[in-house]
Amino acid sequence: MRIRVVNPNTTRAMTGVIERGARAVVGPGTLLDAVTNEMGPVSIESHYDEALSVPGILAAIAAGERDGVDGYVLACFGDPGLDAARELAAGPVIGIAEAAMRAASHLGRGFSVVTTLGRTVGLAADLVERYGMQRFCRGIHSCELPVLALDSDPDARKIITAACLEARVADQPDAIVLGCAGMSEFSAQLSAELRIPVVDGVAAATLTVQSLLMMGLRKSGRGEYAAPPPKRYVGLLREFGR
Amino acid sequence: MRIRVVNPNTTRAMTGVIERGARAVVGPGTLLDAVTNEMGPVSIESHYDEALSVPGILAAIAAGERDGVDGYVLACFGDPGLDAARELAAGPVIGIAEAAMRAASHLGRGFSVVTTLGRTVGLAADLVERYGMQRFCRGIHSCELPVLALDSDPDARKIITAACLEARVADQPDAIVLGCAGMSEFSAQLSAELRIPVVDGVAAATLTVQSLLMMGLRKSGRGEYAAPPPKRYVGLLREFGR
Amino acid sequence: MRIRVVNPNTTRAMTGVIERGARAVVGPGTLLDAVTNEMGPVSIESHYDEALSVPGILAAIAAGERDGVDGYVLACFGDPGLDAARELAAGPVIGIAEAAMRAASHLGRGFSVVTTLGRTVGLAADLVERYGMQRFCRGIHSCELPVLALDSDPDARKIITAACLEARVADQPDAIVLGCAGMSEFSAQLSAELRIPVVDGVAAATLTVQSLLMMGLRKSGRGEYAAPPPKRYVGLLREFGR
Amino acid sequence: MRIRVVNPNTTRAMTGVIERGARAVVGPGTLLDAVTNEMGPVSIESHYDEALSVPGILAAIAAGERDGVDGYVLACFGDPGLDAARELAAGPVIGIAEAAMRAASHLGRGFSVVTTLGRTVGLAADLVERYGMQRFCRGIHSCELPVLALDSDPDARKIITAACLEARVADQPDAIVLGCAGMSEFSAQLSAELRIPVVDGVAAATLTVQSLLMMGLRKSGRGEYAAPPPKRYVGLLREFGR
Amino acid sequence: MRIRVVNPNTTRAMTGVIERGARAVVGPGTLLDAVTNEMGPVSIESHYDEALSVPGILAAIAAGERDGVDGYVLACFGDPGLDAARELAAGPVIGIAEAAMRAASHLGRGFSVVTTLGRTVGLAADLVERYGMQRFCRGIHSCELPVLALDSDPDARKIITAACLEARVADQPDAIVLGCAGMSEFSAQLSAELRIPVVDGVAAATLTVQSLLMMGLRKSGRGEYAAPPPKRYVGLLREFGR
Amino acid sequence: MRIRVVNPNTTRAMTGVIERGARAVVGPGTLLDAVTNEMGPVSIESHYDEALSVPGILAAIAAGERDGVDGYVLACFGDPGLDAARELAAGPVIGIAEAAMRAASHLGRGFSVVTTLGRTVGLAADLVERYGMQRFCRGIHSCELPVLALDSDPDARKIITAACLEARVADQPDAIVLGCAGMSEFSAQLSAELRIPVVDGVAAATLTVQSLLMMGLRKSGRGEYAAPPPKRYVGLLREFGR
Repeated sequence: MRIRVVNPNTTRAMTGVIERGARAVVGPGTLLDAVTNEMGPVSIESHYDEALSVPGILAAIAAGERDGVDGYVLACFGDPGLDAARELAAGPVIGIAEAAMRAASHLGRGFSVVTTLGRTVGLAADLVERYGMQRFCRGIHSCELPVLALDSDPDARKIITAACLEARVADQPDAIVLGCAGMSEFSAQLSAELRIPVVDGVAAATLTVQSLLMMGLRKSGRGEYAAPPPKRYVGLLREFGR
Repeated sequence: MRIRVVNPNTTRAMTGVIERGARAVVGPGTLLDAVTNEMGPVSIESHYDEALSVPGILAAIAAGERDGVDGYVLACFGDPGLDAARELAAGPVIGIAEAAMRAASHLGRGFSVVTTLGRTVGLAADLVERYGMQRFCRGIHSCELPVLALDSDPDARKIITAACLEARVADQPDAIVLGCAGMSEFSAQLSAELRIPVVDGVAAATLTVQSLLMMGLRKSGRGEYAAPPPKRYVGLLREFGR
Repeated sequence: MRIRVVNPNTTRAMTGVIERGARAVVGPGTLLDAVTNEMGPVSIESHYDEALSVPGILAAIAAGERDGVDGYVLACFGDPGLDAARELAAGPVIGIAEAAMRAASHLGRGFSVVTTLGRTVGLAADLVERYGMQRFCRGIHSCELPVLALDSDPDARKIITAACLEARVADQPDAIVLGCAGMSEFSAQLSAELRIPVVDGVAAATLTVQSLLMMGLRKSGRGEYAAPPPKRYVGLLREFGR
Repeated sequence: MRIRVVNPNTTRAMTGVIERGARAVVGPGTLLDAVTNEMGPVSIESHYDEALSVPGILAAIAAGERDGVDGYVLACFGDPGLDAARELAAGPVIGIAEAAMRAASHLGRGFSVVTTLGRTVGLAADLVERYGMQRFCRGIHSCELPVLALDSDPDARKIITAACLEARVADQPDAIVLGCAGMSEFSAQLSAELRIPVVDGVAAATLTVQSLLMMGLRKSGRGEYAAPPPKRYVGLLREFGR
Repeated sequence: MRIRVVNPNTTRAMTGVIERGARAVVGPGTLLDAVTNEMGPVSIESHYDEALSVPGILAAIAAGERDGVDGYVLACFGDPGLDAARELAAGPVIGIAEAAMRAASHLGRGFSVVTTLGRTVGLAADLVERYGMQRFCRGIHSCELPVLALDSDPDARKIITAACLEARVADQPDAIVLGCAGMSEFSAQLSAELRIPVVDGVAAATLTVQSLLMMGLRKSGRGEYAAPPPKRYVGLLREFGR
Repeated sequence: MRIRVVNPNTTRAMTGVIERGARAVVGPGTLLDAVTNEMGPVSIESHYDEALSVPGILAAIAAGERDGVDGYVLACFGDPGLDAARELAAGPVIGIAEAAMRAASHLGRGFSVVTTLGRTVGLAADLVERYGMQRFCRGIHSCELPVLALDSDPDARKIITAACLEARVADQPDAIVLGCAGMSEFSAQLSAELRIPVVDGVAAATLTVQSLLMMGLRKSGRGEYAAPPPKRYVGLLREFGR
């Protein structure tokens, strides 16, 4: 069983963090690797960044299909390109927002999301709705840390902790969902410190892919998620034609 | 990691079916057993049956806590007693309807549910709403087979297949969810025959519990799902006092 | 016209409070009595308590049917066992949460609910949704009084009044719904003091049953609420088999 | 206790039908009368008719307040002018659509509405939403009988029965709501014939008003439903100034 | 192309304000005039006022049809009589609440409404729902200025500005919608001062009518919005019979 | 006032069709041009195609900003890249799905959408939800014509007409929305033939942009739709860095 974790931004250091988070939870029979997007922004903090991360993600999925990968994790909390990736891949593709929110929904009546910049809150709200999680999501809170500062800012953990505490007071949640793949490594410590389950989407999505594979569940291959129709592409993106 | 699957009805043969379904998907490090409810109806086909299956389920959870069980599966598609069970257990308790619908939601835009008797359709609809799955559930279809006939009626598989086909035509779903734990053993064959993913909740719930345990996620222990307040109980149920 | 009010907990003193609340509003042609649940918790303050109050409630309904009772009130704000009770009874069964919220919805655009322990707020929220009252319910507030303290704590009325005031400020409601049958006796005084209609579900449900009977309305007897299918029951609950 | 039923159209014969329906269900202590709108359309079959029925309804409410009436029924299935009437009246004002749908919601999981002309279906749908009844309403069916033909067309009952049968097949409802005050007199017979509860809003609304009065519940007098601010009115409607 | 703006209240001075707002945005080929309601309240601040503004609005529409008007604006934020007006008119009829909210929805993820008296907030909330704008509307704020004080109170602009600021802080909106036609003249200045787009419904509705006419779009003439069926009317309103 | 219409696919012939549709409705003071996407698929018929049309759309918007364009139309029914385009542009950016559905919502209670391939129905459904149009949209129908066949297939108009007729029967809509920019040229004829308003999104979006500009409404420049934060981009898309 081969699972590939795709880091939608182009920062290799972050791929390392993500890979460790995924590797920590997979079963012994699972081969896991992680790849970095080869084109686009070094971090994703706007609709613009997100849109432009997608071609590279799709290239990574196409490569994965050639490599015989069985399932994929999209390791950015916006779940960028999820629908298109599902058309390309024969096996399951799971976003970390999707998986984290579903996991949190098993832990009680309501969760809070703690994300990076305030300008991404709307994006998270769109996903809450897409996954039918409105009845579970009690609030989306930003800590105003840029994504790359998660790794470089020595106060990163402190700042995230403060935002989680604020969410716990405001929403009285049964769980907290971390709204960025780069926060992955903080989840266990936060959970212990705050005495509330803190869900890391990288782990959750990896286990969801593994579970779907274990059950032999893959898309039906007809309808909306069938392979994209072959088509000529032009200009800079001409190689994406199929 | 110890997972216990609880069969909410009192029919031992069905516990066997369920146990096989669960055992087929767990990882090597997981100890799994299955128990039969010791009081209540031999099958659950009404609100009345469901309500009266709950005391025995709660007794099974209480016993599990004494035995050091880490997580539980409630193996009846009505997810009976789920909230109360979550109060009792320290670890995760997952219903098969919950897990099956969430798994199906990862496979496309919409699923159909195929259940036993028409009178249970409303109950399934309540769960669709509870889990935020209205945007994914396209229809709930009954095959009018009583639960115990799943095992005894030689035409059971044929009848379920017909109901799945009907659902596929009516709803154009991306997946089918089997609406009874007793249908567990048919899922792989149906999936192959109908060329559409068919989700068995017993496998899905078992993997969900295992995944939550792997991530170290358990309820926060405060608020709605804290242990029930100690209380005197009287009459036939006096032993349920805590 | 015979109406029976069922007290879902096993505390006889509370049955007295409830019976007085119901008797105060029925018409001259209505025979009304109240019965106490004979098995289960002395008060209902958790999902666990609620689930275990249901067998006794169903026993009371079954006895009522033998006694020729025409309609029933379930006098606990969680409306425990409502669906199962409706299967058993030929006539109407109305919960006090259901009736209170519907009555409040006639009095303006929005109501607040004031209930006992905070841990039951989620349960009340489930009922708000079940009855389609989300557009009317502006908030659910707890006063953190245990149910049995309503009767024994000399400050009970003061504490409830404070919670109602808080709700009035926070939600600007057009009415307040009392979230516990045991608060029944306070409604008139609270209404006068707070100058806002305060709805007692015991009175509301009793009048709803009486109204439905007066109109000759009873379930159709087919489909989801038909009598439960006959079935063997085992163990402690074997007498519930039908 | 004085209840007044207002017939929103200007056809006296229909007021008679409505009054009989209301009188049949009130208690011995209730004084009930019915009045006919004195200005506007002879029947209400469009948004235009409905809008122009409202001034006369409000005049009837204002007269009722001078006469010491305690509560009102608006006996047209569009519940015309309900909000304005509630501002004017000190006591409860209940529409028959509101009351009928709420009563039907106590009888099972879903009801159908059978109304007169197809062009009024949208109006009924607006009310379903206003009262939070979307989860209960399974369909709205028209029988294409003009309102006044209910009384004059010898086949009226046959035509309505056919529409009810059609609704029963299409929606599998637990109850049928009659979507016109003029159908009031058919409800008992339809109920018996179709073996499904058939709800007449005139009876339901009358009993709802009586119940609210019995509980002493009336609007709070502040906010949205306070008496309308005094104001100069001009032209044909100048007498409506207050 | 002839567009008529109808002022639903009977205050001529306000018609002037409205006409200027509309005239400022129409194209060179559009003939625009504004008329004052000839019967009813001098301002609309309650459900009662609104209901009684409708006959005069409908008389204005009927006159417009005789005059060959192509489309209409209803220039009161409650969009009074919109459905009935659409039945009467062959061309488009657009309310200012409808148009303002739709325009604001193009400017970002969420808007706030700032209206006059608090008692009209519920009415605005009904319209938010009617137009499907719940996901865009973040709050409805009142400034407690009576409608006619918008013109006469020297502090009017200051008070509205304060309410807009409050809304901006509370809701973090991407735009503000002015909830009264009489605020029309303040929109540009507020927009500049508050550095957030401020939407005036009079301009928005006028442009919407003009756009629909430019596209040749008018109602289909069948079904719910067909011309009202001819009918006898009696009493004060007998001239409304058709 | 400069408006630019962006054709999201890379087929120049289709840009011509679109430009004609837009030009037919703009006012005399408006400068309008249309540009073709310079990279990506020749037509958009999958999530994959759509995702890969976005970089070129964003390049077109960036060029427009340098050229002093005031507002933009995205002329593909999926409204691809709308959020990202709004971040880039100082003025309004309107998608044709958005504008068409809003226009249709002014014409009655419900509309149908007629689109090209069945596999894009889900995408249209997502937009219905995004724009709050669920209460207006009665159905989405596909005619199974590939986008480029709209121009080349001699039976195109006949096939679309048939799909519109089917929608009219199934949904009883008050208007039909054409679900592809390439259908633009058919709208007037279809409208006349089918005697139901048929909405072309290209015209609707162009008029919406013109109306917003006429009102001086543009995004606030703060929050979610502020310009994207400057960022390094790598690989094939490195020139998108800002």
